[in-house]
Amino acid sequence: MPKISSKGQQMPQSPIRKLVPFAEAAVAKGKKIYQLNIGQPDIKTPSCALEAVKNNAIEVLSYSHSAGFESYREKLAHYYTKTGLPVEKEEIIITTGGSEALLFAMGTITDPGDEVIIPEPFYANYNGFATASGVTIKPIESTIENNFALPPIEEFEKLITEKTRAILICNPGNPTGYLYTREEVKKLADLALKHDLFLIADEVYREFAYEGAEHHSVLSIPEITENAIMIDSVSKRYSMCGARIGCIVSKNKEVMATAMKFAQARLSPPTFAQIASEAALDTPQSYFDEVIEQYTLRRNILVEGLQKIEGVKVAKPKGAFYCIAQLPVDNADDFARWLLETYEDNGETIMVAPAAGFYSSPNTGLNQVRIAYVLKKEDLERSLEILEKALKEYNRQN
Amino acid sequence: MPKISSKGQQMPQSPIRKLVPFAEAAVAKGKKIYQLNIGQPDIKTPSCALEAVKNNAIEVLSYSHSAGFESYREKLAHYYTKTGLPVEKEEIIITTGGSEALLFAMGTITDPGDEVIIPEPFYANYNGFATASGVTIKPIESTIENNFALPPIEEFEKLITEKTRAILICNPGNPTGYLYTREEVKKLADLALKHDLFLIADEVYREFAYEGAEHHSVLSIPEITENAIMIDSVSKRYSMCGARIGCIVSKNKEVMATAMKFAQARLSPPTFAQIASEAALDTPQSYFDEVIEQYTLRRNILVEGLQKIEGVKVAKPKGAFYCIAQLPVDNADDFARWLLETYEDNGETIMVAPAAGFYSSPNTGLNQVRIAYVLKKEDLERSLEILEKALKEYNRQN
Repeated sequence: MPKISSKGQQMPQSPIRKLVPFAEAAVAKGKKIYQLNIGQPDIKTPSCALEAVKNNAIEVLSYSHSAGFESYREKLAHYYTKTGLPVEKEEIIITTGGSEALLFAMGTITDPGDEVIIPEPFYANYNGFATASGVTIKPIESTIENNFALPPIEEFEKLITEKTRAILICNPGNPTGYLYTREEVKKLADLALKHDLFLIADEVYREFAYEGAEHHSVLSIPEITENAIMIDSVSKRYSMCGARIGCIVSKNKEVMATAMKFAQARLSPPTFAQIASEAALDTPQSYFDEVIEQYTLRRNILVEGLQKIEGVKVAKPKGAFYCIAQLPVDNADDFARWLLETYEDNGETIMVAPAAGFYSSPNTGLNQVRIAYVLKKEDLERSLEILEKALKEYNRQN
Repeated sequence: MPKISSKGQQMPQSPIRKLVPFAEAAVAKGKKIYQLNIGQPDIKTPSCALEAVKNNAIEVLSYSHSAGFESYREKLAHYYTKTGLPVEKEEIIITTGGSEALLFAMGTITDPGDEVIIPEPFYANYNGFATASGVTIKPIESTIENNFALPPIEEFEKLITEKTRAILICNPGNPTGYLYTREEVKKLADLALKHDLFLIADEVYREFAYEGAEHHSVLSIPEITENAIMIDSVSKRYSMCGARIGCIVSKNKEVMATAMKFAQARLSPPTFAQIASEAALDTPQSYFDEVIEQYTLRRNILVEGLQKIEGVKVAKPKGAFYCIAQLPVDNADDFARWLLETYEDNGETIMVAPAAGFYSSPNTGLNQVRIAYVLKKEDLERSLEILEKALKEYNRQN
């Protein structure tokens, strides 16, 4: 039998998905599960996006431009410009989700064996994209004690070698919810400039900043125009995860020309989803106001609820819709599985994502979990109640 | 300024797309262009597929299963089984186009530096997927004199090294239109088995076989169950290129488990397109009968027309909707560009794909072009007329 590649063997399993079989078994037994493990919002997709797809007049569903509809790129450039980031349509390539944008970025700037520095904990699928591209991730630990703020810039500098090609940040952070300050983004920009590195910012949660906090894009630092690559997506902004539309944005012409070759090889991004995404740009501000209000409420319920549970430590997120909670258990992986396999409270349990999978350093974050506050108020409150009871029960048993 | 990767620099430009700027300039000058360069059919997408999207009741456009809708995989397995290929839904992963299926296959079975043997001329984007994966393509030339039939199997064997991981064929072939006989597929299967290689068959044109010729899938050879990987797509079958839905099919459990890790990293294939693709499986047979009749007619017009032009040699395609024509010019690249930049007949010209980009061996196929017969009868006839006149004019001038 022919063999799987080393790359294939090394591809990590998504920490968000590896508990799925246990969840399925629990559901099969009639258990109700509150899913706090995945960033799938319950928020409705804007009707203008859904209606545009329903009203399409397509007769031949043909390829689009490899960079995406020109009309969409134009409107999107306008959208960024309105948010204070002057972007031209030539500086945007529409991709199949933020995922593909990250893959294009990796392919454009790295060769196998190259290194990318990422503050951890980080979005677990970065591991997958790095492995697929043959890239080594060099993690720098940010800590719950420090609310997951940017680690000292000297720590980054220590890790820079001849093979370092980029620093990658997620801002606001998945899974930390941390929103970088302008000063932090500027420090990273200076470092990138000094060492001739790319600074890639995954900004798919850019609109999710709470209590009036401001988001500072990598594109807002004029000094690093040639070094900056921004990754974006419609998934969270419009609750359109299933569209699979994102984009890669850079003012570096060589980066865009190279990313375009990757885009051409896969022909085009999905057409129906582009129709929805272009129309979504007409979503009224009231939609976002309500969404942010809803998430602020949920965040407050979750964080305050977690703080009340004995032995639980939590970093208050300023953006995105996740938080990392440290639990009074030795191994959150075992606990998360136990929640699904063994525990129930009136036939109900919760599903959380063990945080170790968001760290690249071994044996780190073992007692932490990522919780997504994508459920409605009542469900979050019930989830907190279950968590508190479950922790007591688990620690009595173990 | 930070540097692009070697990989990025090596990414080939699609030979189908590199003439696009000249075409755009010609159109801007008011020239009408008959596009024979790209496999974008003018055939209408089945209404059942389009209607399903219009009638969707989605409120939250959420992620789907990473392997695609379970209901879709089930129906698709049934579809393959009906065509004589017993496939289970667990043996299918829905991908974002055949492109992503090829990338998953490459990632699953190759490491950087590995080799894949491909008969040339081949679908040009294989170069892109190979470069993106760090894989070296080892080409074996098939010739127009031999109608692009499978080269002698000894030629394949000569190329096999320790680094060879797979043989990749496109059947029926893009750009050749060649349909492999059962004996040819069997020979490749025996070779794969003997040397413990994977045999990947890109069968996205599987339904496009003319004059009652039979298509022989890589999945129809029971001896190589563990070695066979099939790539498929809805793009051509239902004239749904813009959906971006394909699949990877294999009975090798380790291959599927590994491909699934790549699938999970990118979360899910596009939802609207899956709705269309699942519904498309209900397309009545009459649709395909008409399509095949239409393509047979077009093929006959094109091939007979080309044969009548002095100095043109053409291999008669038995499948897909392309043919390779050898022209009485030294460099088809120059000629194709001249057609767009300089030539016109009553304000009209044609666009063809220079075939050199479909060969991996240097300086091969220089006087050949790929012509897609995706236009209606009258347009094909007019295109042939333009080609004949243009060749005379070009050879008079040069």
